[in-house]
Amino acid sequence: MADATLLETFENPHPDRDYLVEHKVHEFTSTCPKTGHPDFGKILIRYVAGRTCVELKSLKLYLQSFRTDGIFYEDVTNVMLIDLVRVCAPKWMMVKTIWTPRGGIHSVITAEHGRDPRSR
Amino acid sequence: MADATLLETFENPHPDRDYLVEHKVHEFTSTCPKTGHPDFGKILIRYVAGRTCVELKSLKLYLQSFRTDGIFYEDVTNVMLIDLVRVCAPKWMMVKTIWTPRGGIHSVITAEHGRDPRSR
Amino acid sequence: MADATLLETFENPHPDRDYLVEHKVHEFTSTCPKTGHPDFGKILIRYVAGRTCVELKSLKLYLQSFRTDGIFYEDVTNVMLIDLVRVCAPKWMMVKTIWTPRGGIHSVITAEHGRDPRSR
Amino acid sequence: MADATLLETFENPHPDRDYLVEHKVHEFTSTCPKTGHPDFGKILIRYVAGRTCVELKSLKLYLQSFRTDGIFYEDVTNVMLIDLVRVCAPKWMMVKTIWTPRGGIHSVITAEHGRDPRSR
Amino acid sequence: MADATLLETFENPHPDRDYLVEHKVHEFTSTCPKTGHPDFGKILIRYVAGRTCVELKSLKLYLQSFRTDGIFYEDVTNVMLIDLVRVCAPKWMMVKTIWTPRGGIHSVITAEHGRDPRSR
Amino acid sequence: MADATLLETFENPHPDRDYLVEHKVHEFTSTCPKTGHPDFGKILIRYVAGRTCVELKSLKLYLQSFRTDGIFYEDVTNVMLIDLVRVCAPKWMMVKTIWTPRGGIHSVITAEHGRDPRSR
Amino acid sequence: MADATLLETFENPHPDRDYLVEHKVHEFTSTCPKTGHPDFGKILIRYVAGRTCVELKSLKLYLQSFRTDGIFYEDVTNVMLIDLVRVCAPKWMMVKTIWTPRGGIHSVITAEHGRDPRSR
Amino acid sequence: MADATLLETFENPHPDRDYLVEHKVHEFTSTCPKTGHPDFGKILIRYVAGRTCVELKSLKLYLQSFRTDGIFYEDVTNVMLIDLVRVCAPKWMMVKTIWTPRGGIHSVITAEHGRDPRSR
Amino acid sequence: MADATLLETFENPHPDRDYLVEHKVHEFTSTCPKTGHPDFGKILIRYVAGRTCVELKSLKLYLQSFRTDGIFYEDVTNVMLIDLVRVCAPKWMMVKTIWTPRGGIHSVITAEHGRDPRSR
Amino acid sequence: MADATLLETFENPHPDRDYLVEHKVHEFTSTCPKTGHPDFGKILIRYVAGRTCVELKSLKLYLQSFRTDGIFYEDVTNVMLIDLVRVCAPKWMMVKTIWTPRGGIHSVITAEHGRDPRSR
Repeated sequence: MADATLLETFENPHPDRDYLVEHKVHEFTSTCPKTGHPDFGKILIRYVAGRTCVELKSLKLYLQSFRTDGIFYEDVTNVMLIDLVRVCAPKWMMVKTIWTPRGGIHSVITAEHGRDPRSR
Repeated sequence: MADATLLETFENPHPDRDYLVEHKVHEFTSTCPKTGHPDFGKILIRYVAGRTCVELKSLKLYLQSFRTDGIFYEDVTNVMLIDLVRVCAPKWMMVKTIWTPRGGIHSVITAEHGRDPRSR
Repeated sequence: MADATLLETFENPHPDRDYLVEHKVHEFTSTCPKTGHPDFGKILIRYVAGRTCVELKSLKLYLQSFRTDGIFYEDVTNVMLIDLVRVCAPKWMMVKTIWTPRGGIHSVITAEHGRDPRSR
Repeated sequence: MADATLLETFENPHPDRDYLVEHKVHEFTSTCPKTGHPDFGKILIRYVAGRTCVELKSLKLYLQSFRTDGIFYEDVTNVMLIDLVRVCAPKWMMVKTIWTPRGGIHSVITAEHGRDPRSR
Repeated sequence: MADATLLETFENPHPDRDYLVEHKVHEFTSTCPKTGHPDFGKILIRYVAGRTCVELKSLKLYLQSFRTDGIFYEDVTNVMLIDLVRVCAPKWMMVKTIWTPRGGIHSVITAEHGRDPRSR
Repeated sequence: MADATLLETFENPHPDRDYLVEHKVHEFTSTCPKTGHPDFGKILIRYVAGRTCVELKSLKLYLQSFRTDGIFYEDVTNVMLIDLVRVCAPKWMMVKTIWTPRGGIHSVITAEHGRDPRSR
Repeated sequence: MADATLLETFENPHPDRDYLVEHKVHEFTSTCPKTGHPDFGKILIRYVAGRTCVELKSLKLYLQSFRTDGIFYEDVTNVMLIDLVRVCAPKWMMVKTIWTPRGGIHSVITAEHGRDPRSR
Repeated sequence: MADATLLETFENPHPDRDYLVEHKVHEFTSTCPKTGHPDFGKILIRYVAGRTCVELKSLKLYLQSFRTDGIFYEDVTNVMLIDLVRVCAPKWMMVKTIWTPRGGIHSVITAEHGRDPRSR
Repeated sequence: MADATLLETFENPHPDRDYLVEHKVHEFTSTCPKTGHPDFGKILIRYVAGRTCVELKSLKLYLQSFRTDGIFYEDVTNVMLIDLVRVCAPKWMMVKTIWTPRGGIHSVITAEHGRDPRSR
Repeated sequence: MADATLLETFENPHPDRDYLVEHKVHEFTSTCPKTGHPDFGKILIRYVAGRTCVELKSLKLYLQSFRTDGIFYEDVTNVMLIDLVRVCAPKWMMVKTIWTPRGGIHSVITAEHGRDPRSR
């Protein structure tokens, strides 16, 4: 089961500036809750940090913890956003999941938390 | 004939958040009402769900039901949008059809329902 | 000489919705008024239909009627826009001409009629 | 059922030279014999003509006649090669079928008849 | 553990012709024997069938059975080749594994069995 | 009608060396003998010169002289090769014509004269 | 020295419409004022014409007149904009210069005159 | 240690116009503070100059001075922005760092100083 | 100084088969012996193993040991080949170095040891 | 006038091995002998060195010396090959010139000296 306790943070070295952090993970796999077959995708995380930043190695381990989860695309995306927001309290965050095709259909799900302070 | 009764939905797992769902179907074929020859295209569907999401397998079967329909590009696009809106009542939806060239002309038709709540 | 009488229309099947129609023509040739040599280009037409849509086969024949015209890039673009607007009275229309290079210079001309009702 | 009687030929205008003819068809669909779902692919035909060449419009109609056939990838490829060889008796011919992915697997099948006289 | 008993075959519908079959699998994952972290890659299989062809659904299941294996790149490639050759006895077969980068290093391993009869 | 008398040559400045000359023409149009509609394509000419080279401006004018010809793909290719060989007597020459799709079919025709002396 | 007197104009054939003209020049060279070595770049010019349009052949000659100029990237861009604005008095103009890398650094400079009337 | 004293400027030749300067550096390396292994990336700098512009050779030397620094992605980006702003006092500046993947994760960090005067 | 003692090997798991191993390293830097500035490149290593294979982590460390070396492109390539051949005694090996441009010149150096046993 | 005395060499550091050196120059300009307008192209040089290698900075200066030469494509290519062979006496050398289009025609000229010892 996806394990949010794996996530770690480090102190934002420049908390006074609203700068953008992007991490794109090319290697993600979970399991289709209907067929039991593996799903494959890419995960894009964008955020403007508050007091803390997401530590990369812990992010990798957290994403690996979905490996055996049976979970829908729409759910994966929102669960990740909720877990990441809880652990690092960003000013704004976006999670986008891009899936390899199933039955000729390519799916992409995008969820956001808060509002990007840089666009005001 | 395109059969909207094939479309099924499932409950939106995160109805409280306006997140974006995109499905791109690379394999679509209908029939030209003038020549009787097959038309080939790609279908892009983007929406912000209300209470329900479109189930992918049923979407695939619905799109396959156009296989023998004699129907114009402009009409296919609007018919799909109308059928999909009726079945899942999204907050916002866009249907875009991208056609392989006929007589050296590449056509793309884009129709929207409602207004994307994320752009307000 | 470019012959606007070749253009035909058909009734817009969904006049109540402001949807976008795009036709990209990869095969266009006219003649340079200065050198008499052929010019080659691509034509992109985008519009939101009013009561009628442009019929594709007639569009192809209309574009072929430029084949022997000696006409400047800037003029071709505006003439097409004027002819197409007259025949189908769209809510908004854009014509873009993209030319193969001459003397190492790549030219693109873009003209619009009205304002896209979808951007309001 | 695929109908080889649709195929027509015309006389090779330059039978004294071993030149290469290639036709790539971007729009092909047949039906999976297991699931009944449509398969989509591209067809590449290469040949050195003997006395006759394959007529393009008839080739298109022949390929459309596979639309409702339930047939495996390996079989489609060889059946096309056999039909085409029978109708135009080329010195050499190759048929390659390139399929859109199923279950994350992209398949390509390539069959040849005779030996390319240009490689001797 | 990779389970070769999952592999199934079907009778080659055209055993008299040496034609090429290619399957490219974009979704493969195994586990690094050193770090325990997942490895991700693509698998390309090319062969000229003897009496039997590899059945695609069983191939997919076989490849999924590597999901938890701790195994080196060089070994995966050869093990697959050995398993596939044993089950379908091709005239010639090639297995190529293409791995996502680790430590900035992109690896590709290619092993062959027998000699392609088409190159003689 | 295609006019070979437009072709001019200049003396090969390095006749003692078998070097390769390639000219790719991105702008070519002729007319379909069946439908009367224009065909569009690209022309690739490769040769090892004998005593003379093809002059580029005259090549351009020669290719423009096909503009109103009703001629099949296979024939255009061989006619060009014959005309060019007659005028400059190359040691080896190849003409390749690459056509924009008609009815979803992309065609390429390749004809050669003599044997490339560099491959011996 | 760059010679603005080379620039010529012709009357805008459609002065009543604010349409966009773009010319991209792939072949530009000037000289580095520090090292004396040649610099290479591409020039993109975009404008909405007033009463006159820039004549293309004269534009080419004007750009060639920079060939031996020792001039900085930032300066070339602004000088071109000033010269072009003076000669054709556009409603809006943008000049963008894109340079091949020096010391591993790719530079792009973009300057504008006035405000695009189409964006109001 | 990154050495801001290496940075030099030259007088802005067109201080009266708000034009955009972009420098993309394809060759950057620093050191991971955790593992001691080298990190590799690209640096994109965009600014609207005030009284001075950044001299390119000095920029290159400044970026080389990070070669042995153990420093996090987020920190590199902000440190560069701070150093560059201090030395040339731009009206607006953006620094974007694009890193080669580590553990399958591609990171991009973007920080801005001030507000682009051209967007007002 | 490049340190060949860093290289480690592991036993070839399939010594009876001549299979191909490729490692492409996207992150390499050494120092120009003339200017003292860093050079950047990519390294491609291809080999058919004898009794041992090159261990990837040790390969990475070995390549990092060139970081401060002042060494010409031609020399780097041959030195790597000599070091790698000495440590793992392959049946055949190729080293290719691909360098980022200097003064507008892109260089690639390719050296081989022995003859690929698969090409016989 | 192109000045071969600018070319310098350095001693081949590994004369006992037949390895391949490639230099691709993206920035080349000469002058058309007919029109007096500048020509632009790319130069690819490949060789297997004998006792000496071509020094890169001198190669750059040599290529710059063509800047004002009025010379045909075919001639430039052979002249470069002759000059380079004279100065460094390679075992084998190839010069390829790739030109930006003139009148819609893209030209490439390729000349070789000797025979690549690696292909024996």
